[in-house]
Amino acid sequence: MASEQPNETPTNPAIPAPSAEAGPCDEAAAPSKKGAKKAEAKAKKEAEKARKAAEREAAAAATAAVAAEDHAKDNYGEITKDKKIEAETMHLRDLGEEYIGKSIKLRAWIQNSRMQGAKMAFVELREEGSWTVQGVVAASPEGKPVSRQMVKWIGGLNLESFVAVEATVQKPLEPVKSCKVSGYELHLTKVYLVAPAPEMLGLGLAAASRAVGKLDDEEVGEGLEAKLEGVSITETTPAASLATHLNNPAMHKRAPVSQAIADIRIAVEDLFCEYLKERRFKKFHPPSLIAAASEGGANVFRLPYFEKECFLAQSPQFYKQFEIAGGRKRVYCVGPVFRAENSNTPRHMTEFIGLDLEMEIEEHYHEVMHMLEGVLLHIFKGLATNCREEIDLVRTVYPSEEFLLPEGGKEIRLTFAEGQALLRAEGPSEYANVRDDEDMSTAQEKALGALIRKKYNTDFYVLDKFPTDARPFYAMPDPENPEVTNAYDFFMRGQEILSGGQRLHLSHELEKTIRSKGLDPNQPGLKEYCEVLKSVGCPPHGGGGIGLDRVVAWYLNLPSVQLVADYPRTPKRLSP
Amino acid sequence: MASEQPNETPTNPAIPAPSAEAGPCDEAAAPSKKGAKKAEAKAKKEAEKARKAAEREAAAAATAAVAAEDHAKDNYGEITKDKKIEAETMHLRDLGEEYIGKSIKLRAWIQNSRMQGAKMAFVELREEGSWTVQGVVAASPEGKPVSRQMVKWIGGLNLESFVAVEATVQKPLEPVKSCKVSGYELHLTKVYLVAPAPEMLGLGLAAASRAVGKLDDEEVGEGLEAKLEGVSITETTPAASLATHLNNPAMHKRAPVSQAIADIRIAVEDLFCEYLKERRFKKFHPPSLIAAASEGGANVFRLPYFEKECFLAQSPQFYKQFEIAGGRKRVYCVGPVFRAENSNTPRHMTEFIGLDLEMEIEEHYHEVMHMLEGVLLHIFKGLATNCREEIDLVRTVYPSEEFLLPEGGKEIRLTFAEGQALLRAEGPSEYANVRDDEDMSTAQEKALGALIRKKYNTDFYVLDKFPTDARPFYAMPDPENPEVTNAYDFFMRGQEILSGGQRLHLSHELEKTIRSKGLDPNQPGLKEYCEVLKSVGCPPHGGGGIGLDRVVAWYLNLPSVQLVADYPRTPKRLSP
Repeated sequence: MASEQPNETPTNPAIPAPSAEAGPCDEAAAPSKKGAKKAEAKAKKEAEKARKAAEREAAAAATAAVAAEDHAKDNYGEITKDKKIEAETMHLRDLGEEYIGKSIKLRAWIQNSRMQGAKMAFVELREEGSWTVQGVVAASPEGKPVSRQMVKWIGGLNLESFVAVEATVQKPLEPVKSCKVSGYELHLTKVYLVAPAPEMLGLGLAAASRAVGKLDDEEVGEGLEAKLEGVSITETTPAASLATHLNNPAMHKRAPVSQAIADIRIAVEDLFCEYLKERRFKKFHPPSLIAAASEGGANVFRLPYFEKECFLAQSPQFYKQFEIAGGRKRVYCVGPVFRAENSNTPRHMTEFIGLDLEMEIEEHYHEVMHMLEGVLLHIFKGLATNCREEIDLVRTVYPSEEFLLPEGGKEIRLTFAEGQALLRAEGPSEYANVRDDEDMSTAQEKALGALIRKKYNTDFYVLDKFPTDARPFYAMPDPENPEVTNAYDFFMRGQEILSGGQRLHLSHELEKTIRSKGLDPNQPGLKEYCEVLKSVGCPPHGGGGIGLDRVVAWYLNLPSVQLVADYPRTPKRLSP
Repeated sequence: MASEQPNETPTNPAIPAPSAEAGPCDEAAAPSKKGAKKAEAKAKKEAEKARKAAEREAAAAATAAVAAEDHAKDNYGEITKDKKIEAETMHLRDLGEEYIGKSIKLRAWIQNSRMQGAKMAFVELREEGSWTVQGVVAASPEGKPVSRQMVKWIGGLNLESFVAVEATVQKPLEPVKSCKVSGYELHLTKVYLVAPAPEMLGLGLAAASRAVGKLDDEEVGEGLEAKLEGVSITETTPAASLATHLNNPAMHKRAPVSQAIADIRIAVEDLFCEYLKERRFKKFHPPSLIAAASEGGANVFRLPYFEKECFLAQSPQFYKQFEIAGGRKRVYCVGPVFRAENSNTPRHMTEFIGLDLEMEIEEHYHEVMHMLEGVLLHIFKGLATNCREEIDLVRTVYPSEEFLLPEGGKEIRLTFAEGQALLRAEGPSEYANVRDDEDMSTAQEKALGALIRKKYNTDFYVLDKFPTDARPFYAMPDPENPEVTNAYDFFMRGQEILSGGQRLHLSHELEKTIRSKGLDPNQPGLKEYCEVLKSVGCPPHGGGGIGLDRVVAWYLNLPSVQLVADYPRTPKRLSP
């Protein structure tokens, strides 16, 4: 029999209905004190224990009395060894016509519940991200699996508790619009509580499923307010701040939008690796612990290491080059890099995942640029096809325009000087005098991104030939013009996501450039680096490093990279 | 025309013939001093510069004079913009009959060279790991591409220099046994030096390709001497110590044996990910920077973090559990973990790559054990089929017996108590009194491994139900016997490669266990951990962590994990 009262609020299944919420959960009692206090506390505890035991006994007796009259008493309650469900386990994604009338087992979270009088309850069950289904439980006379007591107990379970249920699959009278699985409902015959949620959640699923309300960064990023304006926040569920989201990781992650972002992030990494593996790139793992601050010493974390000192790698740069010197023609790596930069912006983190590659150059460094463009286009196209559903779900929460790719698959490349010229000619008046030999600011980059979008109809482009002063000592100078380098940045929606270029592969030239930058090739870190390149004949090579979280954030036009990283780390956040 | 003098030393192509070797390369001159000394140094430098310039001019003039008589002068020398090879680039792995008589381009290292009189030279060229081919260069009269001067110049190139060559593919009179490509040889018509190697290598390829001679660890590991005894070290090329290998990473990595080990390592990681992805596991990236020493505080690296203090994660344990609490049913991660343990043994590193997984448990924690056994068997079987060539190559350098798997695909599982009983009954006499409630030593583990191999004919097995005192606070006690836990270790050739088990998922039970271990659930690190699990209903779950380098090392029976890691980190080694 189909239920007569399907949950009828016609909402977006991606955003659960509002639910009760409160501040962070209460903390456990303070630990016991020393000495005399300890003894006292112990005595008190014993007394309390005895009192509680008595209470429990009384309660148990009362429950037993009630249970005696409860014909369904074995079909619900906290799970124990004896409470078993024999039916086959089913996953909501697999639910189809062949299950109608059959008894199945499901393990899921209680997303919502609603009593309908004293004899009936509707329970929204969620499994694996955003898969939800309506559960119905209705009390019947003796001999049937459900009692009034059972309905009441189920209706009283805290939201986000985890349960194991036995149910019969039925067709509802009307599609259940509030659930992703709208064509079936589950008539519950057993419900066992596997793990209870607290009465008050630090962050409810409804708020977790909405756009963050406040970023709490020093620099919130241009256009964030505009970005968040279009977002649908119901009146009953106020938006939670980014901090509240991140302080409640389990609930933040349970939101379908978070799961979709996490799935897109995995897809980006997989697409990156897939493309490179097909082109004979070999993976390796650079170390995080290194003996010297490799790239000048600024913004690097340092720590005691037995009798010595050590540093956290800011990039795998040197090690990628060692791999090339070591005879691997093409390498890539995926792993954390660390920046001790006190930047509180929506695009900075102190630890983030870098997608890096390095390869031999045969004739020209544009071979590398072409490879990097290729892998990024592969990622963008892969996302648009493989992650359509996830992207659409994210857009219901964080609206964004489709990410524009250059037409006909051809790349948009400008030299740095051409970019500056465009800014001077067509950009805001404050950029009328930008110079070709000075690096761009973030604001300049964004302004240029807008100009390029207008002119070339793309959100993805490359700036090549960066000025020498804007690049590190290992950048290869342009042989035609020593003022610029064979180095480039890649941009998405006017924001940098990749830095790379050709490297100096001849150690005498490298040492010369190190000196010209006012550094000493014999200083710790640089010395070992130069020695490796000097120790063998190292072929010409180049590469680039991609910030994984930035690619995802700017592709989806999210307000912060902290919504992408699994556990973002910033100057202010180390936990959880 | 095929050459008349193929290189005829009948050696293993995996091990290059001995070559000249020396200590580490010379260092560059010391940096200039301050003040007066600086000026003085500058003046000296200028004078030196002028002298060198004059020298260069004279040398150039002399070269020009010689070049004037050299009909092949454009066909060799340092590469410049004008020195181009128009022929199509070829890779040695693709070399086949269709190339005979054709002109090709190849970029490769000079692995060996030998003058044959003044008019001919044989050059062994290496590309992509272990692909080698014989190059022949013979002087001909004017009008032909090779001159005597060119032959002499080529014969004088330093080994391990990187060159671009143009050559005609020919069939040799006899197969070239010393090269992997034995059925073809290259008649060189142009040779350009792209990147010179130094005259003296810190580690020659011949030594790099042999087993390490000395591990330099406090504890070298039982059986190492025996392991290294069978290794073929020719009289002319003494074995280099592990330290020499690691101090010369580019040459160490160029050895075919190192490339094979690196390829096997990649395969292990790929097989791990492939198996889990197929079973709906989701990848994530746990943080390395954490706010508190999570697992008790011993052996953890700590560092200043802006105004605060921070720690490097010893494992992704807490974060894997947060993912489960966050609604991901099955997760895995691959990334570095850190141990500040002053252990100088062949199985310890301070940074290593962990392969971790965590999953919901439906009925019993053996579901997790079964998954872990499954993924490891998938790895072992995958290696045996996909990496046959690499494994065989490694065995020519580090001989080992085939890794034995349980017959018929059935797993070998003993309880910890059964393992101890076997040790008491059949092990060495010093283990006659080992106890069921105390953890095993490494020596005990190895002795047990030998007994199990004899009894069950397997190098891979599981010890289950570890005593409570040997496991961390988050381990789930066995509901039948609180003296032991639902936790296990996995072994390869008697050495632990995986630790795992079921975790406490109910926060009140977790807090109770934390207290019973003498810890305070409100201490930093533990508090945040308990709070996340308390903040929602978290389903039962379990998992395990695999040491990537150990799996490879023990599978191949290598003398140290430092031969597996790309850039091993130990208490004594942070560089390069």
